[in-house]
Amino acid sequence: MKSIQIIPIGFVQRESREENDKDRSLISRIIINKDLNDALDGIDDFSHIYIIFWMDKIKDNDYVHHPGKVKDSKPLGIFATRSPIHPNPFGLTLVKLMKREKNILWVEGLDALDNTPILDIKPYPDWEHGMCIVVTDFKIPNWLKKEQKA
Amino acid sequence: MKSIQIIPIGFVQRESREENDKDRSLISRIIINKDLNDALDGIDDFSHIYIIFWMDKIKDNDYVHHPGKVKDSKPLGIFATRSPIHPNPFGLTLVKLMKREKNILWVEGLDALDNTPILDIKPYPDWEHGMCIVVTDFKIPNWLKKEQKA
Repeated sequence: MKSIQIIPIGFVQRESREENDKDRSLISRIIINKDLNDALDGIDDFSHIYIIFWMDKIKDNDYVHHPGKVKDSKPLGIFATRSPIHPNPFGLTLVKLMKREKNILWVEGLDALDNTPILDIKPYPDWEHGMCIVVTDFKIPNWLKKEQKA
Repeated sequence: MKSIQIIPIGFVQRESREENDKDRSLISRIIINKDLNDALDGIDDFSHIYIIFWMDKIKDNDYVHHPGKVKDSKPLGIFATRSPIHPNPFGLTLVKLMKREKNILWVEGLDALDNTPILDIKPYPDWEHGMCIVVTDFKIPNWLKKEQKA
């Protein structure tokens, strides 16, 4: 398949600059390229946004089966997990938008390392014909239910 | 910023091959590259998945302000809309996973054209420490509320 060239629209700045610190309770700043400043107009009327980012620190390429942290489970493909190890290491996280200051978004809930490239932003939730699409009636695997009870 | 090279993991096959047919009620098949077949193991224990795709038919690059379909609203930046016109034309759609057959996922709710490249797949919902993250308490802009009432 033809490869696709992508230019990040910004990057993450974190309170903690520790390697591997993905703690979601930290506040992150998303610094958007200044020439896209106006493209953020109106975004702060949403309380939540999706952040699509690029996990550029991921090096492992054993991306077929999940490393096996899930007990008592069949082998799981990485598309059935949130493993950061996968062919295109996109991160996708729904975060709380605390404020916008010009080209800077302050968000809570992001699990991306300091300096991570940002590829795209989408408002939450999605909608069609003016109707918001929020899925609350969903099915998850038993291994995930067991994690919930543990 | 340094550009990023991405190789699609598959593509969309639609019942309708009409140009511009993004009807979500259609069933789509997501054909994943065969060498990633095992990476799908266990995905069908989720009822819903996110699809990240690449809207390669988008050519317009007036991506700062939304073309203005929203009435009685201030100019809106494209990051505050679901406009397909933006710097990196990612699509992000939450779909219902109907079945998996080897490297093929049958899904309902996708608004991507026939032959659209697929970049990544994530299970829904996200979780942390075994707890599912589902946001039902959110704020949306007034212009979107008005669309809902119309």
